[in-house]
Amino acid sequence: MRLATLRVDGRTTAARLLDDRTAVELPAPDLGALLAGADWRAVAARDGARLPVTDLAPPVPRPGKIVCVGLNYRNHILEMGRELPTHPTLFAKYAEALVGPRDDIALDPASGAVDWEAELAVVIGAAVRHATEDQAAAAIAGFSALNDITMRDWQYRTPQWLQGKTFEGSTPFGPVLVTPDELPGGVRPALALRCTVDGEVVQESTTADLVFDPVALVRYVSTIVTLRPGDVIATGTPGGVGHARDPRRYLRDGSTVSTEIEGIGTLTNVARGYAPVPA
Amino acid sequence: MRLATLRVDGRTTAARLLDDRTAVELPAPDLGALLAGADWRAVAARDGARLPVTDLAPPVPRPGKIVCVGLNYRNHILEMGRELPTHPTLFAKYAEALVGPRDDIALDPASGAVDWEAELAVVIGAAVRHATEDQAAAAIAGFSALNDITMRDWQYRTPQWLQGKTFEGSTPFGPVLVTPDELPGGVRPALALRCTVDGEVVQESTTADLVFDPVALVRYVSTIVTLRPGDVIATGTPGGVGHARDPRRYLRDGSTVSTEIEGIGTLTNVARGYAPVPA
Repeated sequence: MRLATLRVDGRTTAARLLDDRTAVELPAPDLGALLAGADWRAVAARDGARLPVTDLAPPVPRPGKIVCVGLNYRNHILEMGRELPTHPTLFAKYAEALVGPRDDIALDPASGAVDWEAELAVVIGAAVRHATEDQAAAAIAGFSALNDITMRDWQYRTPQWLQGKTFEGSTPFGPVLVTPDELPGGVRPALALRCTVDGEVVQESTTADLVFDPVALVRYVSTIVTLRPGDVIATGTPGGVGHARDPRRYLRDGSTVSTEIEGIGTLTNVARGYAPVPA
Repeated sequence: MRLATLRVDGRTTAARLLDDRTAVELPAPDLGALLAGADWRAVAARDGARLPVTDLAPPVPRPGKIVCVGLNYRNHILEMGRELPTHPTLFAKYAEALVGPRDDIALDPASGAVDWEAELAVVIGAAVRHATEDQAAAAIAGFSALNDITMRDWQYRTPQWLQGKTFEGSTPFGPVLVTPDELPGGVRPALALRCTVDGEVVQESTTADLVFDPVALVRYVSTIVTLRPGDVIATGTPGGVGHARDPRRYLRDGSTVSTEIEGIGTLTNVARGYAPVPA
């Protein structure tokens, strides 16, 4: 199934997509609320009123937790001459950072170094703690795309990245949630991932290259804390970010960022607002 | 006012304390819900049914955001020979980490290095973004105590601290929320802070020693993201943690941790569960 949260007449609703233009309305205000029901797969498969797919919200507008992973693409780590990590690097993002798949990315005058990070996002569909491999796999509702837009000047001004990772209205998420049965590789999907900025390809990889795959990440995080329906794990980004280029390259007012994952879809977001040019 | 969230007959309720034993019931299921009302100060001052103060929940059981601050006590930074920071170090904790002021601290077999960090907590009472100094001060609902219990082995196994900071059921918070008008220093309170483990004083300082005071922290965080009612900022801990001792010292099954802040109150929590002894 391909599920989404649609904006309709000033409200949102969970929906199942029949194709790119038409969806079936589902009885929940968003996918977060849908996934919180124990029988959400059956509810999501129901028939209902038809809706046009015109305006998409983040699939889960306000996840209880967003867990982000750093340094998780094998080729990128090896090409940088580093050793593969033994444990995933985790950091957080607050829900206020999220925007929909066609929304603007908010540039803030406080940052002059706004960068892109295309990522596969895991969405949780059942509560799990200390999960076995089978429990972790079963707890994955599906996959989406996310761009972990990062204010590099804020990320690196202290040892902890959070403040550069959670600027309000900066993180595109969507366009849809695709259940594992629809994807090659299932709960360990092998999908081409690409980011373009103003039409130029800046990141290109495959989600088959993750050091810690979605099932491993769910198990690891669930050792620490209960993962709940609607929680999101952003699985990390491959090489090609603007901060690692020579010269460095950042988003400016009007930059168009496209975040594409094969079998899931494309986020298309324009950076808007005043961002001072870095010194 | 001294406000709390009480556990009564299998539910919780917001309450105003008349003294240590008796409270007035307020019309909200917890302080998070109370603070979300625009006129919460007037509502909190109302009279109502009397309740005995027997079982306390975390004042805000599920904050939308918990923002933690590292390296924020001046004397401790200077005695370690470091320079005072120019920006606060921020990291996150998820709401599942919180426990009440008399609850057990959950030890997890996954960690053998569970440490204490007594902290002053700021609780937000109004939505603010890009706050001026006056707006930041007005957005502070009050203060509470929090012990940022930390799994040091998990904190330091990668560069990002989150995974050592957010183990489920590990972070005592409370016992009450005290409004700034009741505290010396108001929104920049000057209060003695102390942590004991099994009766031995391990941390002792004053919240007047913060490098970034509560108003400065609200302003800084609000540059990044909207702070909302019920959000919590844990302002950092002074010297005296177990990991910095020689030999290192950690909590064990049965250890009693007392977290005391003058004018606010005391958290008394027993560590429970199996924690392997570190090698």
